[in-house]
Amino acid sequence: MQLPTNPATISLLGYWIGIAAVAACAAAAVLEVGRKQFDAFGVVVVAFAAALGGGTTRDLLLNRTVFWIADPTYLIAAALAGLGAFMLARRMPLPARLFLIPDAIGLALFTIIGTKLAMNMGTHWTVAALMGVITGVMGGILRDVLANEEPVIFSGELYATAAGAGALALIGLLHIETDPRWAAFWAGSLIFGLRLAAIRWHLSLPKFEARR
Amino acid sequence: MQLPTNPATISLLGYWIGIAAVAACAAAAVLEVGRKQFDAFGVVVVAFAAALGGGTTRDLLLNRTVFWIADPTYLIAAALAGLGAFMLARRMPLPARLFLIPDAIGLALFTIIGTKLAMNMGTHWTVAALMGVITGVMGGILRDVLANEEPVIFSGELYATAAGAGALALIGLLHIETDPRWAAFWAGSLIFGLRLAAIRWHLSLPKFEARR
Amino acid sequence: MQLPTNPATISLLGYWIGIAAVAACAAAAVLEVGRKQFDAFGVVVVAFAAALGGGTTRDLLLNRTVFWIADPTYLIAAALAGLGAFMLARRMPLPARLFLIPDAIGLALFTIIGTKLAMNMGTHWTVAALMGVITGVMGGILRDVLANEEPVIFSGELYATAAGAGALALIGLLHIETDPRWAAFWAGSLIFGLRLAAIRWHLSLPKFEARR
Repeated sequence: MQLPTNPATISLLGYWIGIAAVAACAAAAVLEVGRKQFDAFGVVVVAFAAALGGGTTRDLLLNRTVFWIADPTYLIAAALAGLGAFMLARRMPLPARLFLIPDAIGLALFTIIGTKLAMNMGTHWTVAALMGVITGVMGGILRDVLANEEPVIFSGELYATAAGAGALALIGLLHIETDPRWAAFWAGSLIFGLRLAAIRWHLSLPKFEARR
Repeated sequence: MQLPTNPATISLLGYWIGIAAVAACAAAAVLEVGRKQFDAFGVVVVAFAAALGGGTTRDLLLNRTVFWIADPTYLIAAALAGLGAFMLARRMPLPARLFLIPDAIGLALFTIIGTKLAMNMGTHWTVAALMGVITGVMGGILRDVLANEEPVIFSGELYATAAGAGALALIGLLHIETDPRWAAFWAGSLIFGLRLAAIRWHLSLPKFEARR
Repeated sequence: MQLPTNPATISLLGYWIGIAAVAACAAAAVLEVGRKQFDAFGVVVVAFAAALGGGTTRDLLLNRTVFWIADPTYLIAAALAGLGAFMLARRMPLPARLFLIPDAIGLALFTIIGTKLAMNMGTHWTVAALMGVITGVMGGILRDVLANEEPVIFSGELYATAAGAGALALIGLLHIETDPRWAAFWAGSLIFGLRLAAIRWHLSLPKFEARR
């Protein structure tokens, strides 16, 4: 397989994949809060929280300009995708599973981007891995907190664990001086593959049950 | 009608209206969590979250000095108003509706201030409008999340929608070069009017109910 | 009693007490969410929120570099303590009360550190006291919000009130030019003593019950 080599092509491709992942997370979040009686505004807030919450938390912690303030295309994509899903879902039944694959792509992509951003700022590798996981999963946590539910990622199929494994793989691959594009590709594929396998075979971490 | 023209008078007037709106939001929040068995500390936290949460979120996102750190008068006003409402409400029945009008003034004022601040920093108009809405409504969301309730503004009468309409009106009026004081006055009046009309006639956005 | 006078000894001692307090808060949080069916990841998130949430909120509000990004030892200590408590608690019954004393030490220490940091940045004394309380108690609030429960500190035994009393005592003692080490020691002891007394004799603030 041949990865693209023209830097402008790569970064443009990455940019639009990022926009698409933001839109997919926003739409998926709207379907997941479907059982709540939210109005159009509530739906947009939940879509924003799910799609932009991870990157926003990362940017605040790293003291960077928040990414959607620097480039509002992300904001607009999340709003349009959230409203679109809202309007579609009122007309026809949309299975929540429809968005599992775009959501897994988003998880992989956000985690890789967050880890690389933190590494480029020279943080310790533990901090870089955590920033990757935060970028990948904080959106889902905020969505569930706003909907007043226990965050599903605390108890469901592997989600943050897949993000963590991918972030550590990326850091390891870059440490042994793998080509950064391949490192990102393999680490992202690991996250995507783990997440799909977890959904398919209901893989999960051991649950906590304190003895009393 | 004649708007004041002395800049010092305007800014002093605006300053004290802002302090009063912070105090009103704090007092209103205390009455709204009345059914929870919070103690005086919990009440002050909820009062802070409701009265200062919107502006704090805005300042963190825009990387400005948090407004109540720059000027603690806001902090003191929120604490005194929250404690005052706590002590009064233990002695006599205070209808929650008592604060609906000050709360609507606060919504209008906070939204206008947030939108203008973001515009002055040169953000995209979509970001400026969102900052206005965040400044206006995030306090109420934080209050409900802390009280472990589904945020009422996600499903009740027009609230954020009124804020959004006013923020967009302000941006449009300034775009066609309306005098900034009149633009702020008309956009704020739109928010206040929409909110009162929504309370009076139970106006709300269509609810989300996904087909299954 | 003789306090240590060598500055390097003092700051090294303070540093390791801080690390130990972070670890104790993380372990205590894991035991407190024991009745929820969280997995290992959820447990680590809750441990991070409880142990690092207060200082993180303070650093974001004061626009400082987040302390665990500047020194990831805190991050590693919280993760190891959280996972350790998770694994231990699955094997043997650990009483939640086991951590009440380390938790009270953490409350005292975090509050003193937060207050001093804010004072060193020249904030108003009301802001410095609030920063102390936020550093001391925000971790527990975040933990409960993530676990989808009403924050216990809003209605339980004196907790934030102890922190607030200690922060004000520190500010007062420094104002009358007490030796800073003694001021920190006495204010910290006040917090620790108040908290233990509150647990022992079930001291609490008056509850809010609005008349209707």
